[in-house]
Amino acid sequence: MRIYADNAATTKMSRTAIDAMLPYLDGIYGNPSSLHTVGQQAAEALMTAREQVAACLHCTAREIYFTSGGSEADNQALISAAALGAKKGKKHIISTSIEHHAVLHTLQALEKQGFEVTLLPVDEEGHITAQQVADAIRDDTCLVSVMYANNEIGTIEPVAEIGKLCREKGVLFHTDAVQAAGHLPIDVQAQNIDMLSMSAHKFHGPKGVGALYARRGIVLTNVIYGGAQERGKRAGTENVAGIVSMAAAFKEACENLEKNAAHMTQMRDRLIGGLSQIPHCALNGSRKNRLPGNVNFCFEGIEGESLLLLLDAKGICASSGSACTSGSLDPSHVLLAIGRKHEVAHGSLRLSLCEENTMEEAEYMLKEIPPIVEYLRSMSPVWKALERGEQQHLL
Amino acid sequence: MRIYADNAATTKMSRTAIDAMLPYLDGIYGNPSSLHTVGQQAAEALMTAREQVAACLHCTAREIYFTSGGSEADNQALISAAALGAKKGKKHIISTSIEHHAVLHTLQALEKQGFEVTLLPVDEEGHITAQQVADAIRDDTCLVSVMYANNEIGTIEPVAEIGKLCREKGVLFHTDAVQAAGHLPIDVQAQNIDMLSMSAHKFHGPKGVGALYARRGIVLTNVIYGGAQERGKRAGTENVAGIVSMAAAFKEACENLEKNAAHMTQMRDRLIGGLSQIPHCALNGSRKNRLPGNVNFCFEGIEGESLLLLLDAKGICASSGSACTSGSLDPSHVLLAIGRKHEVAHGSLRLSLCEENTMEEAEYMLKEIPPIVEYLRSMSPVWKALERGEQQHLL
Repeated sequence: MRIYADNAATTKMSRTAIDAMLPYLDGIYGNPSSLHTVGQQAAEALMTAREQVAACLHCTAREIYFTSGGSEADNQALISAAALGAKKGKKHIISTSIEHHAVLHTLQALEKQGFEVTLLPVDEEGHITAQQVADAIRDDTCLVSVMYANNEIGTIEPVAEIGKLCREKGVLFHTDAVQAAGHLPIDVQAQNIDMLSMSAHKFHGPKGVGALYARRGIVLTNVIYGGAQERGKRAGTENVAGIVSMAAAFKEACENLEKNAAHMTQMRDRLIGGLSQIPHCALNGSRKNRLPGNVNFCFEGIEGESLLLLLDAKGICASSGSACTSGSLDPSHVLLAIGRKHEVAHGSLRLSLCEENTMEEAEYMLKEIPPIVEYLRSMSPVWKALERGEQQHLL
Repeated sequence: MRIYADNAATTKMSRTAIDAMLPYLDGIYGNPSSLHTVGQQAAEALMTAREQVAACLHCTAREIYFTSGGSEADNQALISAAALGAKKGKKHIISTSIEHHAVLHTLQALEKQGFEVTLLPVDEEGHITAQQVADAIRDDTCLVSVMYANNEIGTIEPVAEIGKLCREKGVLFHTDAVQAAGHLPIDVQAQNIDMLSMSAHKFHGPKGVGALYARRGIVLTNVIYGGAQERGKRAGTENVAGIVSMAAAFKEACENLEKNAAHMTQMRDRLIGGLSQIPHCALNGSRKNRLPGNVNFCFEGIEGESLLLLLDAKGICASSGSACTSGSLDPSHVLLAIGRKHEVAHGSLRLSLCEENTMEEAEYMLKEIPPIVEYLRSMSPVWKALERGEQQHLL
């Protein structure tokens, strides 16, 4: 049995996404900028894809800019808002301490350029509140960037409330919706979202494609300069096959959103309930405002990496935080932000489900995980010290 | 009959490239940063692709950075060299007037940041010389960026000579090899190239993937900030399927380079010889130092766009300059740089061939193009004025 429970890292492309892509690998291969028939076929496909993505987000096609992924979209949203702010002498940006590194590292680059960044702290479940944002907004604030849902702990932020507040205050609002798009309902108009980033491979589309929604009137700054593609704001021959495939995957995900969420929530809650029985563990993230597919626990006295390797040997693909930071020895900045101590943050496990996972798989994981945790603890000097009472339990 | 003669805009993916990609769409879908088996399969594929690309360029795998395409690679090369230069107080960059907009527009952005840019003029065939570069190098020059071969007129620049000179002078040398990679022999060591940009879809790979070679020791600046992918220099989940496909296509192109070039050169020369018979036309670019697949003519008295549409009706897909600037009313900056007047530059035709084109197709084009040029001239007020002697012929 092989169970893929790392869908927050990346998903398997759906049949719909693959089928949508194939004709653009083999048959319709033109450059959308070319005037001839072969080029114009590609240009039409691009336009249809743009309309499909726009329809799912409740915006217009001309507000969609295709990028190489969620990271590029995040980068472009932030540097664009910063450039617009700088023109008015507004160089203060508000974000949160649990953003993805695509946001945090771009903000660090902006700090080097003279911008001031306020990273709002989160509560023990990973929430921030609209009130925190309201309190942090200053006369020189040019941007609020708050993720829609966290990639590690699954906590969903009050995006509509923050959007409403920012609109009232006249501050641009960007949300990194990489984990939310295709999984949670999004309406950029109703939610007063000015800019939104998404990534195809998080909802069964291909890797290497994403989109940035930017409300009409927001003048973007290029991340990539060159040709006049994407209304002059993103140079480079369009990845037509990838874009068409992303649009098909996104449409399918949005159409099946409620059904998929119900199924995933059922598995998620079974896993959370079952894993909670393990002594000295704690659920990370919100019990209530949580991505349907996200399960994240800290287990005291063990190393996440060892846990992953043993799970892999049992056919379970999971992660210990975000894939983007694996290989790093630092504990997750998200887990530290919700108050986990270093020792505990190292022992985390994220199971991220998709609609193709089954309750049978959930039961298999519930059978396999507790003995592995127990085994690792039996070998852990830290756990032995805890058992002997030489150290205090943190969980 | 449908003839695709716009391979400089984009190519049809080869069977090899498609077959290399398919397993990564359907079977091996992991995130290379994930520790589990599914992720590690993807990581291994990425490493193999990196080694393949490196072998073709004669560099090491760790000198290859995968990007979303040639434009991103160009942007990153230039901003990286600029950042390295600025640290030493060197803020002068040398390039040419016929570069792709991915270079020229990035240089404009750098000018706004205080860099000084010298754009070397080219001769009437589009050449620059190493001597011109030598004369332009100053104590504060941090970068020389000269394209390997021009995308519109096909002229090949003396890259090895410029590389040697730059190495001697201690100035970084970048070449935009988007049109050359897979079509001309490249050896970054022998040619003393410090940075090189390439794009998969120009050699029968997929759109949306490219690579930047940066010589060991050159510290890149991120264009996209975020996760630690590509040794921390290019954030975003890797487009594994696209990268594997690019590597396969590049390997195939390099292995068949001489054979393909010989075939393309034969068709090219037949087309150049045949089209030269049309009165008042001129070949653009070098007769000798020319991409094997490039044919580019100016025809006096006609509009390139009308020519393209009539050619399309006859099943011939061609272009009138670079695809990246089509839709623009400005004449090609490349044609102006080689001394064509505005009136004449508008009447250009680029046929760009690949190894799949046939001599039969070349003959078909030679049969169809002259009567279309004649027809367009018969309706052209400019041509009539020329015929009546009211205006002087420019060609």
